[in-house]
Amino acid sequence: MLVRLLYASRIAGDTICDTVQEITRQSREFNPPHGITGVLCHTDKVFMQVLEGGRDAVNGLYAKILGDARHSDVILLHYEEIDERRYSGWTMGQANLCKVNRATLLRYSECAELNPHGMSGKNALALIDDLMSAAAVVAHA
Amino acid sequence: MLVRLLYASRIAGDTICDTVQEITRQSREFNPPHGITGVLCHTDKVFMQVLEGGRDAVNGLYAKILGDARHSDVILLHYEEIDERRYSGWTMGQANLCKVNRATLLRYSECAELNPHGMSGKNALALIDDLMSAAAVVAHA
Amino acid sequence: MLVRLLYASRIAGDTICDTVQEITRQSREFNPPHGITGVLCHTDKVFMQVLEGGRDAVNGLYAKILGDARHSDVILLHYEEIDERRYSGWTMGQANLCKVNRATLLRYSECAELNPHGMSGKNALALIDDLMSAAAVVAHA
Amino acid sequence: MLVRLLYASRIAGDTICDTVQEITRQSREFNPPHGITGVLCHTDKVFMQVLEGGRDAVNGLYAKILGDARHSDVILLHYEEIDERRYSGWTMGQANLCKVNRATLLRYSECAELNPHGMSGKNALALIDDLMSAAAVVAHA
Amino acid sequence: MLVRLLYASRIAGDTICDTVQEITRQSREFNPPHGITGVLCHTDKVFMQVLEGGRDAVNGLYAKILGDARHSDVILLHYEEIDERRYSGWTMGQANLCKVNRATLLRYSECAELNPHGMSGKNALALIDDLMSAAAVVAHA
Amino acid sequence: MLVRLLYASRIAGDTICDTVQEITRQSREFNPPHGITGVLCHTDKVFMQVLEGGRDAVNGLYAKILGDARHSDVILLHYEEIDERRYSGWTMGQANLCKVNRATLLRYSECAELNPHGMSGKNALALIDDLMSAAAVVAHA
Amino acid sequence: MLVRLLYASRIAGDTICDTVQEITRQSREFNPPHGITGVLCHTDKVFMQVLEGGRDAVNGLYAKILGDARHSDVILLHYEEIDERRYSGWTMGQANLCKVNRATLLRYSECAELNPHGMSGKNALALIDDLMSAAAVVAHA
Amino acid sequence: MLVRLLYASRIAGDTICDTVQEITRQSREFNPPHGITGVLCHTDKVFMQVLEGGRDAVNGLYAKILGDARHSDVILLHYEEIDERRYSGWTMGQANLCKVNRATLLRYSECAELNPHGMSGKNALALIDDLMSAAAVVAHA
Amino acid sequence: MLVRLLYASRIAGDTICDTVQEITRQSREFNPPHGITGVLCHTDKVFMQVLEGGRDAVNGLYAKILGDARHSDVILLHYEEIDERRYSGWTMGQANLCKVNRATLLRYSECAELNPHGMSGKNALALIDDLMSAAAVVAHA
Amino acid sequence: MLVRLLYASRIAGDTICDTVQEITRQSREFNPPHGITGVLCHTDKVFMQVLEGGRDAVNGLYAKILGDARHSDVILLHYEEIDERRYSGWTMGQANLCKVNRATLLRYSECAELNPHGMSGKNALALIDDLMSAAAVVAHA
Repeated sequence: MLVRLLYASRIAGDTICDTVQEITRQSREFNPPHGITGVLCHTDKVFMQVLEGGRDAVNGLYAKILGDARHSDVILLHYEEIDERRYSGWTMGQANLCKVNRATLLRYSECAELNPHGMSGKNALALIDDLMSAAAVVAHA
Repeated sequence: MLVRLLYASRIAGDTICDTVQEITRQSREFNPPHGITGVLCHTDKVFMQVLEGGRDAVNGLYAKILGDARHSDVILLHYEEIDERRYSGWTMGQANLCKVNRATLLRYSECAELNPHGMSGKNALALIDDLMSAAAVVAHA
Repeated sequence: MLVRLLYASRIAGDTICDTVQEITRQSREFNPPHGITGVLCHTDKVFMQVLEGGRDAVNGLYAKILGDARHSDVILLHYEEIDERRYSGWTMGQANLCKVNRATLLRYSECAELNPHGMSGKNALALIDDLMSAAAVVAHA
Repeated sequence: MLVRLLYASRIAGDTICDTVQEITRQSREFNPPHGITGVLCHTDKVFMQVLEGGRDAVNGLYAKILGDARHSDVILLHYEEIDERRYSGWTMGQANLCKVNRATLLRYSECAELNPHGMSGKNALALIDDLMSAAAVVAHA
Repeated sequence: MLVRLLYASRIAGDTICDTVQEITRQSREFNPPHGITGVLCHTDKVFMQVLEGGRDAVNGLYAKILGDARHSDVILLHYEEIDERRYSGWTMGQANLCKVNRATLLRYSECAELNPHGMSGKNALALIDDLMSAAAVVAHA
Repeated sequence: MLVRLLYASRIAGDTICDTVQEITRQSREFNPPHGITGVLCHTDKVFMQVLEGGRDAVNGLYAKILGDARHSDVILLHYEEIDERRYSGWTMGQANLCKVNRATLLRYSECAELNPHGMSGKNALALIDDLMSAAAVVAHA
Repeated sequence: MLVRLLYASRIAGDTICDTVQEITRQSREFNPPHGITGVLCHTDKVFMQVLEGGRDAVNGLYAKILGDARHSDVILLHYEEIDERRYSGWTMGQANLCKVNRATLLRYSECAELNPHGMSGKNALALIDDLMSAAAVVAHA
Repeated sequence: MLVRLLYASRIAGDTICDTVQEITRQSREFNPPHGITGVLCHTDKVFMQVLEGGRDAVNGLYAKILGDARHSDVILLHYEEIDERRYSGWTMGQANLCKVNRATLLRYSECAELNPHGMSGKNALALIDDLMSAAAVVAHA
Repeated sequence: MLVRLLYASRIAGDTICDTVQEITRQSREFNPPHGITGVLCHTDKVFMQVLEGGRDAVNGLYAKILGDARHSDVILLHYEEIDERRYSGWTMGQANLCKVNRATLLRYSECAELNPHGMSGKNALALIDDLMSAAAVVAHA
Repeated sequence: MLVRLLYASRIAGDTICDTVQEITRQSREFNPPHGITGVLCHTDKVFMQVLEGGRDAVNGLYAKILGDARHSDVILLHYEEIDERRYSGWTMGQANLCKVNRATLLRYSECAELNPHGMSGKNALALIDDLMSAAAVVAHA
């Protein structure tokens, strides 16, 4: 059974670049053998990541994230059983939202800054779709 | 929570040009920090303005408008909670309806003159959409 | 409140050309100040006219038509309150159905001749739409 | 082809009782042989009448009403081709709206008084349905 | 044109009983001649009121409320043009939410306390419908 | 923002009765002040629990469950943002599925035994609804 | 493949009673072995009959009717492939429409007289449904 | 009232070419004055013809076909009242299905041979639409 | 994954009673441990059986039936993945269609005799539903 | 009656190339005279084949496959009555899924390997559609 899971978290500590690099490196190793695909969006303060894969694999990874000291305020934004993956071509796509234009962020938010803890899951997914279609998601950070 | 609010008002006094210029200048200062976007339509007699943003911010601005002596006969045409802004790219777009062609105004009105106090909210929004797609909305007056 | 009204009538007397010219001339004077737009179709035997505008204005004009000796067998084919005009760009478009191709008339009729008194309102409107998209409606007769 | 037609008019002159009685008497003679059924609502100022029957019969009667000096400000509220009559059991039902309760009139109006010239056709039909289900329509005045 | 408007406000000052009594008395005088109907819900901290009536009348009353020192943090929760009133039988129904059972409030809220400033307009209307069907709305406070 | 979360877990260790009693006692203390409502189903091998409440509160509790040694193989079955709670009247309802009839379990499963790790979230929710309508959910174990 | 076929015809000659009796007797012999069911409506001038059964059987019977001198002006009103018969319990139900009340006939017709040649197939079927639910269809004439 | 009628028949006798030519010639004479349009498909064994026109005209022609010795096993495949003709441009289009490719026939049939007596009306119409869009229907045989 | 499978077969040999008894006895042993539920309909010539259960279990049983010499002309009528069983309460319900009334069989068939090899899967399922609601399905033959 | 049937099986023995060649050769002989069309997908471990054709023909072929020693673990994934074939142009198209890209397989599966025994019928059909549109299906292996 395939599922899609979207969560947000705040970055614990301030070495954001290193954290993103590290997570990216771990994703490249961990995800392919576990059949997990997805996209990771981040600013210098928050993460928002969508994961797709088998229900057990995605739940296993989410439990690890909840227990990972690099993430705080982890919150589930969206979870659904799916017939078909949307990100099957991405081991783990990445988007740095500090570089995204103001209007894209305003479209779904009260202010022009990524604040996933204040967004509905539906809006958060719509924002990721906008980023995809604007080619703001890339294969490597 | 994002909302969209559309109101109409009559211009109190007759120095319409100055009033529009002043409102435009104030919008440019006030709206970006408050996350408000939208479009302002006017003739030399009436205003019709759509505002998008956080529910508190938009309500705060509407309360100021109701108390602003430059507006009389302020009337709410439309209000809804939205998932997504339609005007996220406009700090405050403007359209001078004195310059719009007769058929556009007739499409939603009994006569070829802007009369938002006699329009339904749905028609008023449809007129603004028509103006957008006909490039009659501009970034600066 | 905007309405759309479609009626048919037979031409009383036989000077059809003069009648059409006269009605056209009167429309050009009467309709713009009353905010009425529409399309007039005719053969040398029958009229079929769609009128759009404010409810009072359209009803006033229809009462005049019912009392006008040039029209006999006046019959209402369609009437609806509308959000949006379909013919806002036409003071009074015209189509001479004697010149229309056989297949267009057959599409909605038992025989290849305009017979609005035997058509439903829905079919009569669909025929006018076909004429519009085939550029058979012109601004002047 | 069956149609349903709803119009409103103001009563010209002030002998409302006599007018209603007269119209009722005429309906009882005229409607059955012409296959017309319907309902007549009135206050002491306005009429609102729904007519059902063959398209020619209903149009013929409506033309007579437009030319009848007892009616002024005649306005069409609704007209549609129907598959099935709603009032087939009523030669001409009647409802005196002076006797209707305040809440019923307020449901569809800005004030608690019948004002069909300010109502949409849809609301006017809904009001008649409410009157029917509240047994406010009777066979004889 | 009929509209329905729902707003919430906090009670400025602490003499809540007197304020509710005063507002009730004013409603009984003001609403009937202006054709306004609705329901007022309150706790000892907040108001939530739904108003129905003509667009001008409801806007006029809402402008007065925004300028009334007894209300603070006034916020619009819902506004729509309606075909039909839902509260045509209530001059101004009342519900004291301090007396409502815990489960009713929890159904639409994170905590068992009325907090309209944190509710969507849709949920706030649904809560009022629940109160109506549970007979928690009464004609006099 | 309200959410509904449904998860399943296996009971780690074999003192099922004590575990259920303990969880029940903790729920009665923890849930009301956190605004959490829901239903707990169990056999002597597995738990399946649906939680409703504010998004932060429910996520906080789910993180605790993931880190709680009494639960193993914790898996998310369903998560959605909701407008309205379904279990607002239950601090934490309970159903012992060992006592449920064979046909109820077969309706959604390959075998007549609760196996939530093999069910879709939709079926798991439908089973809980069936238990509710069959009065198999009780307020205290 | 099951079909439903509805036709109308005028009775050729004037011995209507004998004709109906004869057709009824023939139906009782012919229909059961051919798996045909249905309903026969008649006045003293016209027949309207709905037939259900296998496509070949119904077409065979309809060809016989077209060639039967007792029927003139035979016209098909409705024909459809069906998943399920509506009249499976009737070898050939009968309804004498001379005895039906005026309002039932007016519901679908311009005049209070059965005129199937002027009805749409949809209305003719609806009339038969009305007769069924009013118990005006009987097993033997 | 417009109808569309589709029937199939087997060709009685074996001089198929002559029969088709003769039927074509008769169609060209008979159809235009009767307002009938349509398409005739044939192999060397079976006919399948769709007719559109006034209800009386199409029924009259179908009765003639049923009595025509050149057709045997005549069976109605589809009949409906229509708002609009689909074949208004064809006096009688023709398609020789012996020349159609195997995949087109297989799409709606168990074998690659036209067998309308074994097809549903819906599939038979879909096959004609396929032939039209593949330009396999021509104006003259 | 749950599935529903409906097949028909002819009874090979003529000792129908013994065959049904034997199959019933085998079902009672085989189905419960394999989680299979369903209904068996039969006349003295044909079987029609619906099976529900896990996909592997149902496929395994169907393969056995195809290889079972007591069944000939085995044909699949319907197969679908289901969220919920319809027959979870029946180990293997039974209906002897020789005892069913004529109208029930005619509703879905050309003749009043069970002929599942000539029925669509949809109609066959609808017939079983009719039998269920008419209490013609029993727990033991 | 046309049906579509999709099954999966494991290849018994390991001479996959020979098996595929043999099955392909047999399909080319058997399918055209039986009116069967479809597509065969395989890896070096599993088959997944969709068959379209008459209900009897497809059932006959499926019974042969169930009894064919080259297939083991045969399981039905999808079966439906269809109005129209989707693969009418393919005697038996083929796709070697060992050559398909990783993202295509991941789209519907937990891992990047064809595992039809773990897929729903809907997903298996969607995968075949993806292969078709990516031109991964060819006429000869």
